[in-house]
Amino acid sequence: MPLADADLRASAVWARALGDCGVLAAESATELVAALEAMRSDLAAGRWQPAGTEDIHTAIESEVTRRTGDLGRRLHTGRSRNDQVATALRIAVRERLAALCLDIAAVQATLVARAESTLDVLLPAYTHVQRAQPVRLAHWLLAHFWALARDRERVQAAYRRTNVLPLGAGAVTGNAFAVDRARLAAALGFADVTPNSLDAVGDRDFAVETAFACALLAVHASRLGEDLVVWSSAEFGFVHWPDALATGSSLMPNKKNPDLAELVRGRSASAIADLMSLLVLLKGLPSSYQRDLQEDKPPLWRTLHASATSLQALAAAIAAIEFDAQRMRAALSDDLLATEVADVLVARGIAFRDAHAAVAAAVASARRAGVPLRALVQHGHDLPPPLIAADLAGLDAETAIERRTVTGGTARAAVTAQLESARAALAAAEKRESEWTR
Amino acid sequence: MPLADADLRASAVWARALGDCGVLAAESATELVAALEAMRSDLAAGRWQPAGTEDIHTAIESEVTRRTGDLGRRLHTGRSRNDQVATALRIAVRERLAALCLDIAAVQATLVARAESTLDVLLPAYTHVQRAQPVRLAHWLLAHFWALARDRERVQAAYRRTNVLPLGAGAVTGNAFAVDRARLAAALGFADVTPNSLDAVGDRDFAVETAFACALLAVHASRLGEDLVVWSSAEFGFVHWPDALATGSSLMPNKKNPDLAELVRGRSASAIADLMSLLVLLKGLPSSYQRDLQEDKPPLWRTLHASATSLQALAAAIAAIEFDAQRMRAALSDDLLATEVADVLVARGIAFRDAHAAVAAAVASARRAGVPLRALVQHGHDLPPPLIAADLAGLDAETAIERRTVTGGTARAAVTAQLESARAALAAAEKRESEWTR
Amino acid sequence: MPLADADLRASAVWARALGDCGVLAAESATELVAALEAMRSDLAAGRWQPAGTEDIHTAIESEVTRRTGDLGRRLHTGRSRNDQVATALRIAVRERLAALCLDIAAVQATLVARAESTLDVLLPAYTHVQRAQPVRLAHWLLAHFWALARDRERVQAAYRRTNVLPLGAGAVTGNAFAVDRARLAAALGFADVTPNSLDAVGDRDFAVETAFACALLAVHASRLGEDLVVWSSAEFGFVHWPDALATGSSLMPNKKNPDLAELVRGRSASAIADLMSLLVLLKGLPSSYQRDLQEDKPPLWRTLHASATSLQALAAAIAAIEFDAQRMRAALSDDLLATEVADVLVARGIAFRDAHAAVAAAVASARRAGVPLRALVQHGHDLPPPLIAADLAGLDAETAIERRTVTGGTARAAVTAQLESARAALAAAEKRESEWTR
Amino acid sequence: MPLADADLRASAVWARALGDCGVLAAESATELVAALEAMRSDLAAGRWQPAGTEDIHTAIESEVTRRTGDLGRRLHTGRSRNDQVATALRIAVRERLAALCLDIAAVQATLVARAESTLDVLLPAYTHVQRAQPVRLAHWLLAHFWALARDRERVQAAYRRTNVLPLGAGAVTGNAFAVDRARLAAALGFADVTPNSLDAVGDRDFAVETAFACALLAVHASRLGEDLVVWSSAEFGFVHWPDALATGSSLMPNKKNPDLAELVRGRSASAIADLMSLLVLLKGLPSSYQRDLQEDKPPLWRTLHASATSLQALAAAIAAIEFDAQRMRAALSDDLLATEVADVLVARGIAFRDAHAAVAAAVASARRAGVPLRALVQHGHDLPPPLIAADLAGLDAETAIERRTVTGGTARAAVTAQLESARAALAAAEKRESEWTR
Repeated sequence: MPLADADLRASAVWARALGDCGVLAAESATELVAALEAMRSDLAAGRWQPAGTEDIHTAIESEVTRRTGDLGRRLHTGRSRNDQVATALRIAVRERLAALCLDIAAVQATLVARAESTLDVLLPAYTHVQRAQPVRLAHWLLAHFWALARDRERVQAAYRRTNVLPLGAGAVTGNAFAVDRARLAAALGFADVTPNSLDAVGDRDFAVETAFACALLAVHASRLGEDLVVWSSAEFGFVHWPDALATGSSLMPNKKNPDLAELVRGRSASAIADLMSLLVLLKGLPSSYQRDLQEDKPPLWRTLHASATSLQALAAAIAAIEFDAQRMRAALSDDLLATEVADVLVARGIAFRDAHAAVAAAVASARRAGVPLRALVQHGHDLPPPLIAADLAGLDAETAIERRTVTGGTARAAVTAQLESARAALAAAEKRESEWTR
Repeated sequence: MPLADADLRASAVWARALGDCGVLAAESATELVAALEAMRSDLAAGRWQPAGTEDIHTAIESEVTRRTGDLGRRLHTGRSRNDQVATALRIAVRERLAALCLDIAAVQATLVARAESTLDVLLPAYTHVQRAQPVRLAHWLLAHFWALARDRERVQAAYRRTNVLPLGAGAVTGNAFAVDRARLAAALGFADVTPNSLDAVGDRDFAVETAFACALLAVHASRLGEDLVVWSSAEFGFVHWPDALATGSSLMPNKKNPDLAELVRGRSASAIADLMSLLVLLKGLPSSYQRDLQEDKPPLWRTLHASATSLQALAAAIAAIEFDAQRMRAALSDDLLATEVADVLVARGIAFRDAHAAVAAAVASARRAGVPLRALVQHGHDLPPPLIAADLAGLDAETAIERRTVTGGTARAAVTAQLESARAALAAAEKRESEWTR
Repeated sequence: MPLADADLRASAVWARALGDCGVLAAESATELVAALEAMRSDLAAGRWQPAGTEDIHTAIESEVTRRTGDLGRRLHTGRSRNDQVATALRIAVRERLAALCLDIAAVQATLVARAESTLDVLLPAYTHVQRAQPVRLAHWLLAHFWALARDRERVQAAYRRTNVLPLGAGAVTGNAFAVDRARLAAALGFADVTPNSLDAVGDRDFAVETAFACALLAVHASRLGEDLVVWSSAEFGFVHWPDALATGSSLMPNKKNPDLAELVRGRSASAIADLMSLLVLLKGLPSSYQRDLQEDKPPLWRTLHASATSLQALAAAIAAIEFDAQRMRAALSDDLLATEVADVLVARGIAFRDAHAAVAAAVASARRAGVPLRALVQHGHDLPPPLIAADLAGLDAETAIERRTVTGGTARAAVTAQLESARAALAAAEKRESEWTR
Repeated sequence: MPLADADLRASAVWARALGDCGVLAAESATELVAALEAMRSDLAAGRWQPAGTEDIHTAIESEVTRRTGDLGRRLHTGRSRNDQVATALRIAVRERLAALCLDIAAVQATLVARAESTLDVLLPAYTHVQRAQPVRLAHWLLAHFWALARDRERVQAAYRRTNVLPLGAGAVTGNAFAVDRARLAAALGFADVTPNSLDAVGDRDFAVETAFACALLAVHASRLGEDLVVWSSAEFGFVHWPDALATGSSLMPNKKNPDLAELVRGRSASAIADLMSLLVLLKGLPSSYQRDLQEDKPPLWRTLHASATSLQALAAAIAAIEFDAQRMRAALSDDLLATEVADVLVARGIAFRDAHAAVAAAVASARRAGVPLRALVQHGHDLPPPLIAADLAGLDAETAIERRTVTGGTARAAVTAQLESARAALAAAEKRESEWTR
């Protein structure tokens, strides 16, 4: 019932405003406010809820009229369903956006925690699902951290643009009783009021922007999900799932499936579709309010709810899955050092393009021979010039990783610094959110 | 060729960095930089352009190698196509986002200008395409202004998240030559560097966010387009198009069609689809670079280009169309005053719900009788109690409009204040953009 | 509970098949079948329903085990959740597709009925929302009929591709007990069996195709909705809504809004999004079953349900709205005859392009003068050569309409013939549907 | 220039019709037809093409007027841009749909050919990217065959609904010169004429349906692409790419990336988006022609072109990739036999659910011990009752595969029969296409 509570809050503030501008006598306003606040408590406590067939707003007006008699029939003075709905919707949406920030933060914190404890677990970084270069597991975990950090920024931006009050815009031309909209905004915790009544009742940007933040978040989650699904295969074997989070097969006794990761991946489809639904809904509508806008709520609640569910599932998964450091290490085959060898040649003054060509030839030769790159010579194969045996000496995954000291690189110090940045980003995001008053 | 110029710029900065970190001798770096800058001039002047079948980056490397010999073969040291492409793309995208801000600003300025000169043109505000209440034309114009103001904020946010440098991330694990990425960023006008190499090469959030800003902008444009199409009908007759902006029919000699407005409306479809294309492209991809990402460019260029075109068309249209103040005024039928009459009853102490019911009955009665609401009595019809003839006296569109003095309302003073806010918003947006260094 | 009933039906047929192939003793199979059929009755009568937390299939297996003891634990032999779910889903979907055909048929029948009774109501045909040429109201009604006829074809095609049995495909490699799949298909009313077990468990084409048929149907409905919304405006005044189908405003006593038409239009957004959801869900999935597929049901049920609701609303609306023949006739302004005048010139041997130019000049001149085209001369205006007064004589809307005798044209005989075709199309569609056995 | 040729063809037929109905003298019609056919030859031979700024239809009318003088100015009599464009578009689209059928057929033929030669290559079937049960490679190849078979049916259906002639519908109300539309249809190879002029000019179902067929096809291609990408990893090692179809890395000398498969997967995004673009374009448009419809062409050409490209790439890839039968065989670990073991217990009279539980326990125990399932006893582990050592004897992948003899199963005979069905489906599809006359 997020809308019911939001509507009660806004209605109480509206009743007070009608008293302030003289439409209602002060004691009448006070009585209405009291009734609405009692209904809010009753709602929270489960003692009352909006009835079946009516919409929430009508149900609330009926109930307050039942409780206060004629007074209830005065509550809608100067207000329209158009500004009323937009107000309740914004209150409910910003609440959920704030909750979403906490859900994102929880996944981020889990990623950081696991990164801290896996600094020395090495595995291949993949591009094109092909082994590319050695990397720290912590680095992979943090890659997902930063995607979520951008998501959180977008959720915060959606919050800011949601947090503007339409109440007082009336049906389309504004309120005629000179209510103090700035005071309404303050009472409801809004940062500002909408500047144009016609725009105020027809604008659903905040809903679309919320759905967009959720959609891109879901896409990020789907990429993490895909990584986990592939890594859970017998062939990769990098990730093992606790029984509580995996499922078996109804037929095949051997199966242990990474369903959680698949569902997170799959749900990105509906998140993209929900965004689409809102954009298409608005496409080609005349300005101001049209009844089509009523259809904005299902995709909006759906995507907010699915985002929360996916994030909570991911937090649980990341905390609980076992990373198989041995399998990861075993996957660090020699060809992952090819870039290093080329760099050795560059250090000897050879142009990079020539170095690249020579090493590529050596890798191909090692593949044909079925031997590791560094064992080519000892297996009696020639190295393509200008490559010589000494170029291959002393190379290993650790060395390769440690050479990447730049900001955002894989060296231990760089990843440690990255962890520091991640913690700072978490603190900064939390601080921004703590300034929201609702 | 937005990517070619961007790549040349980034390559020159990269060559300088290779000199700074000792991979290239200082004079070699200088020679490479000079060659790349010469190519940039040649490109701008049309003296050189990337050849047919190669991609732009390969074509540039071939050409610089042709110009500098072996030196060119050293340029790609420590750099990968992955960080190179992401860098050039971000440079090109932020350029277009900055241009898009100017295009939005031009439409906004036109809306403000026309609003200033139509403050006293009155017409019905519509909801559900039904006459609702009287409003100023300026208010309608400004409603569209504020939608664009939100778009501009989103374009600016997309700019900020685009303006982070991936160069130095290498293929996926970071650069091994300790280049100073902060210096690279400063040289290319980026505000920051990406914090994780694996994320840097696989992240296309900036592209998706750009496409989202364009999609919502296009949806806003489609709503303005729809307003104009309906208002251009013979039945409404509120808008007349100059011959230069309308078209006729190949068959029907009588037609003068608002094609520009229709095309702007129609193009929202491709803007929504281009956003969709990018989200779906990323859905379910493993993290880091996958070749699928190559498909990010067509929808991105398409939506940026279409946004610019639509905005320019709208600026021209809004400046040139004739608003028919007489037809607008003629549409201000009596029923638009119904809310005012109800407010009069409220002022007499009647509960709003009862007032609403009485006035609704009076309006229905006037409709059945085919007479204006205010003429009911003189045509011999009774008023439903508690409505009396005096309640209808002294009401007209101006009075109704002037009663709405709240922030965002229709009263002359409120709209004048709104115009002031609009001008302030324009100035603030322009100031933020002026701080971008590229 | 469409899936529960479908699963019970398929389970009973499966139990019988296990008996036929010797996995179960004949009497055991009979006992299981009886228990499942009893559950089916209990479900229909509300005496039993699947419990809360379990999924439907698990709940059914638990219940049948409760009722039959150890026997229930044998039901899943040789069957997997993968082929079981696909089977139940196809049974439930084809049921709804058949119902959808009836809903479409009802709207079609209403359109035909109103067309039959409005053959002589004339109004402008519009292109670009500009008056184009005179047309019969029946012709406009039938235009929407044919769009629905295509939709019905697509729904029927979706039915055909849904009506193929996956049961027996097991988890992914097929059943090992040599059950007779053709007999299973016959018992469940399927036209065929799936030809490849791996494809069978991973294929959701039938769901996507269903969602596509619904999406395009919804788009057609949105276009009809848009026509009705615009025609319901005070400015057009072509359509009046019965109170039962329209709504008022919570604030404005004067409003009577075409909400039904707006909601039908708005719901096209979710229909498009639901299709999108399914396509994106499948995008990039490995072949065979993945858990993501579980997410196929919400968009599928949603779009089928929304289609039914919209069609039923449209049928009610089309039957009940009042078309205002007088307002339509009044909109037949002279400029609608411009094409006729050009044709008169063509009949005089003038090249069409020259005729077009002359008439366009005359129309422009009439507009400037504010007089009807046919009254130009009597108001003292010259006609642009080669146009002469006689060319304008004897033209009116009826004549223009009656000249269009081609198939699909507006002449009375052509529209009468079109009605005949429409009735034939209805009969043919109904016949195809009557051949479906389930 | 697909539209230019189509327009010339339709224009020639139109000129002939104007002669037949007496609007043009017979010899004039003949002269026009000759000029248009000459232009068609000139276009095909590259001797003439539509000029820069004009649209194709205007360019053609200009040129025919240049060639025939005044006669050219008579060509547009009774025709409108609206029916003209719809006609040319349908001609061009059906041409491409026919070509698409050939492209699909080529991939299907390649899949069949490879299936025929890999009947005895065994590998795990995967669900959830987890090893499930043993399967033939041919079965996996044919799974993709059947998805394409459904696509081909949809393309054929799109062809049928495209192949209906709108010419003669005029701007919106039909042609006034009584042209024989059935004869026009026959001359242009259309199967029927559109039944309602208003619908004819506003209907784009054929375009949307084409885009849908392409989108689902692209989704199927993306699933095949995903299979290939994962199978190309070092960890799976099932697929090796010829150098001609794979690419290396600009930085890493060790890389050989399955770019073709990734691009095919990635392109599904734009195919989905192009469908979306068309649906959204039509959403909420008034019936009949609106200028928005002009935007239908870019997504339509794009998706048709991308479909062709992807299919051709897939045909090349499937023909050329090397399947590594040894790696596939090596992946057939013991746990793939778990379902078989359960079936053995079922044959001993144990309820399937109990059998499943016992085998699952045995598999888990084997995993913990790190030994194959069948080696549990010899490594000193107990079997969970009622499982006994004899149950595990005599099981292997071949036996498991051969037990699945049902239609669509994996047994050699079943797959051979499936191949037969596939060849029959190919022949039937080809036959249907051969009946199309254009």
